[in-house]
Amino acid sequence: MLYAVVMAGGSGTRFWPKSRRNRPKQLLRLHGDATMLQQTVARIAPLAPADRTFIITGADQAEATKAQLSQLPPKNVVAEPCPRDTAACVGLAALIVAKADPNGTMIVMPADHVIQPAEKFLATVQAAVEVIDEDPSAFVTFGIKPTRPETGYGYIERGEDLGSKHGIALNKVAQFREKPDRATAEKFLAEGRFAWNSGIFVWRAQAILDALAKHRPNLYAALERVGQALGTPQEAEVIAREYPQMEKVPIDKAVMEKATNVRVLEVVYDWNDVGDWRALTELVPPDAQGNTVQGSVLAVETKGSIIVSDDGGLIATLGVDDLVIVQSGGATLVARKDQLDKLKSLVEGLDKAGFGATL
Amino acid sequence: MLYAVVMAGGSGTRFWPKSRRNRPKQLLRLHGDATMLQQTVARIAPLAPADRTFIITGADQAEATKAQLSQLPPKNVVAEPCPRDTAACVGLAALIVAKADPNGTMIVMPADHVIQPAEKFLATVQAAVEVIDEDPSAFVTFGIKPTRPETGYGYIERGEDLGSKHGIALNKVAQFREKPDRATAEKFLAEGRFAWNSGIFVWRAQAILDALAKHRPNLYAALERVGQALGTPQEAEVIAREYPQMEKVPIDKAVMEKATNVRVLEVVYDWNDVGDWRALTELVPPDAQGNTVQGSVLAVETKGSIIVSDDGGLIATLGVDDLVIVQSGGATLVARKDQLDKLKSLVEGLDKAGFGATL
Repeated sequence: MLYAVVMAGGSGTRFWPKSRRNRPKQLLRLHGDATMLQQTVARIAPLAPADRTFIITGADQAEATKAQLSQLPPKNVVAEPCPRDTAACVGLAALIVAKADPNGTMIVMPADHVIQPAEKFLATVQAAVEVIDEDPSAFVTFGIKPTRPETGYGYIERGEDLGSKHGIALNKVAQFREKPDRATAEKFLAEGRFAWNSGIFVWRAQAILDALAKHRPNLYAALERVGQALGTPQEAEVIAREYPQMEKVPIDKAVMEKATNVRVLEVVYDWNDVGDWRALTELVPPDAQGNTVQGSVLAVETKGSIIVSDDGGLIATLGVDDLVIVQSGGATLVARKDQLDKLKSLVEGLDKAGFGATL
Repeated sequence: MLYAVVMAGGSGTRFWPKSRRNRPKQLLRLHGDATMLQQTVARIAPLAPADRTFIITGADQAEATKAQLSQLPPKNVVAEPCPRDTAACVGLAALIVAKADPNGTMIVMPADHVIQPAEKFLATVQAAVEVIDEDPSAFVTFGIKPTRPETGYGYIERGEDLGSKHGIALNKVAQFREKPDRATAEKFLAEGRFAWNSGIFVWRAQAILDALAKHRPNLYAALERVGQALGTPQEAEVIAREYPQMEKVPIDKAVMEKATNVRVLEVVYDWNDVGDWRALTELVPPDAQGNTVQGSVLAVETKGSIIVSDDGGLIATLGVDDLVIVQSGGATLVARKDQLDKLKSLVEGLDKAGFGATL
C-alpha cells in the first residue's frame, strides 16, 4: 500500500510579502483556486487517499495546514518542533508509516512544486511502486531532464539502463551530485546523462529506516526513541525532547549518496519548483507587453514585469521595465527582477530594521 | 488695505495617488505639519489677516478647504461651480475685494508653492504694496531669477530700471512670454533679463476690474452680473448661471500681456512650485543613498529614488534606481522618475481603465 508524505516546511522568504513566516509558499494560492499544498495532496489522492496522506510541517504552520486540508485526519498533520532538515523529517514519517503498515511504501514529496499533468505524474509514481514491489530494498528517485545549466539544484547521474516501466525510462543511479558551479552545470547539461534531483522519492518505510540505522546511527537512535512513544500519551513530550538534538542533514546526503540500490525514473511531466516570484511568469499567461499581472494593476509603458496586487488596492506603473512589484498583507515589495536572489536576505533583515511585524 | 486671494484649484493628478480629484496638491501635507494651503495662508497672515483672506476653490474641494482653514470666516472660501482659468477667478476675487473696500489692494497667489523664508516674502509683498500706493493703476508681478532653461514656466522680460524698494529691484515689464521652447529658454537664461513668472500679482481690485472691462468686455459683463448679486439671496444662483459661460483664459493673457503699466519685483526668497513628486527631493533631506523617503520604507541597494508610504504599510525596495514609489489611500504608483511627466495622462486614464474609484 502507498502512503504519501508531504514535506511542508519553509521559511516564507522567497515569496515575501505574500509568503510570511507562518504562511510559507505551499500555503499560498499563487495561481488557480487551490494552494500549492492542496494541489499536492489532491494530485496524489488517486493513489494515496486522505487517510494514508501525512504532512510534516513546522509547529507554527500546523494550524494553517490543517485548516487547508480538512479532508485529512488531524493527526495526519505532524508538527516538527523545530526544523531539522529532510533526514529527520523523512525518518519521522517513515516511523509513522511503518507503524501503520510494516510493508508500507511511501512517496516523499515537497509541498511546493507545480506538476502537470497529474496523469503523467501518477503514471510515474505507479512505475516507482512497481519497482519497489519487485525489489523492496530499492530506493527510487524522480529525475528531471535539465533545460538550462541550473546551479541551484542537485543532480543525479544515470547509470546502467534498466529498461522502462510503462514507457518511463529506468536507470540505476551512478552518483548524486550536489549543486554544481556554472561550468560543471554546463558540462552536465551537455553530457545528457544528468538529471535534476526533484526531491521526490519512493521507497519502503522500513527500507529507509534500515538505511538510516546503517548510515546515521545516532539520528536513527533518536528516531527509535520517538518511534516507541508514537501513539502513547508521551508522544509529544518525547518528540519535543528528541527533535532539537537530531542531526540537521538532508536525506540525499545522509542516505542516498551512500546507498547502492538507487534507481531513477525519467520524469515525463512538466515540473516547476516555483523558486521565487519569477516562476509566476510560467504559471500565469503574460499580457501583451510581456507583463505577468494579478489583481488590480494598470501597467502603462511597462515591460517584462511581474505585478501582483493581493490586497485589493490598485498598483499603477509608469515607464518601468523588469521589476517585481508585489503588494500583500499591507506590505509592498519593489525589486529588480535580476536582484531577486537577494530577497531572502532582505526578509531576514526585516526584524533588525524594525519591520519584524511583516515577517 | 491688503487683501489676500489664494487660488486653490487643481485636478489632483501630479501627486497621485496622494493627490486626488477632491484632494489636490494644496490640501496635502507633503512635508512638515501643515498643508501647502495652510502654509500659504499663514505666510501672508501678518499683512492680510484671516478676515481679509479669500480662497477661490472648486466646488468639490470647498468643504475640505474650509476644514483646513478654520480661522477664516466660512464665506471667505468661495467655490467656483466649474474651473474657468485664472482671469475669471481673479475677476471674481476682485469683485469681492472691491465690494468690501473700493480702494482695496489685493495679492493673488497660488496655494501650492513653497516659499522660504516668510520674512523675505513679506518684504517683497510690502514693496509691491508701496508701488501700488504710489501708482494705484499699476500691476506688480513677482519675477523669479531662473536657474535652468525651464520650458514649463512663462517668462517676464525686465524693461526700464525703476530702482529698488527696500533693496528689492524694481523694473518696468518689457514683455510677457509664454512657455518657451528649449532653445528660447536657453537664450532667456543666458540673456539675464528674463525672470520666471511665479503667478503672484499685486494690484488694486478696481484696477484689475477696469483692465478686464477694457480688454475682456464679455467676461467683464458676466462678472458685473455676478457682482450685482454678491451678498444677495441670488448670489449662488447667479454665479451658477454665469460661470459656465465665462471665457476660459489666463489672467496673464487676458490682461497682463496687454497692460502697459506693469512692474516686476525681483524675488529674493527661495521658491519651489512643487510641480510633481520630484520636488520632494528639495523639501526632504535625502538619505545616505540619495533616496528621499517618507513613512515605513526599507530601501536595500536602492539609489536616487523617491519612496513614500502614506498608508502605514512597509515599502521594501531591492536593487532599484531612480524610481518614484508612492502608496497612499489604498493605491500605489511605481514610476520611473524621468517618466513622471506622463503621470497626468495615466491618472486621466484611470476612469476608462476601470479604476475610477482611485481618481
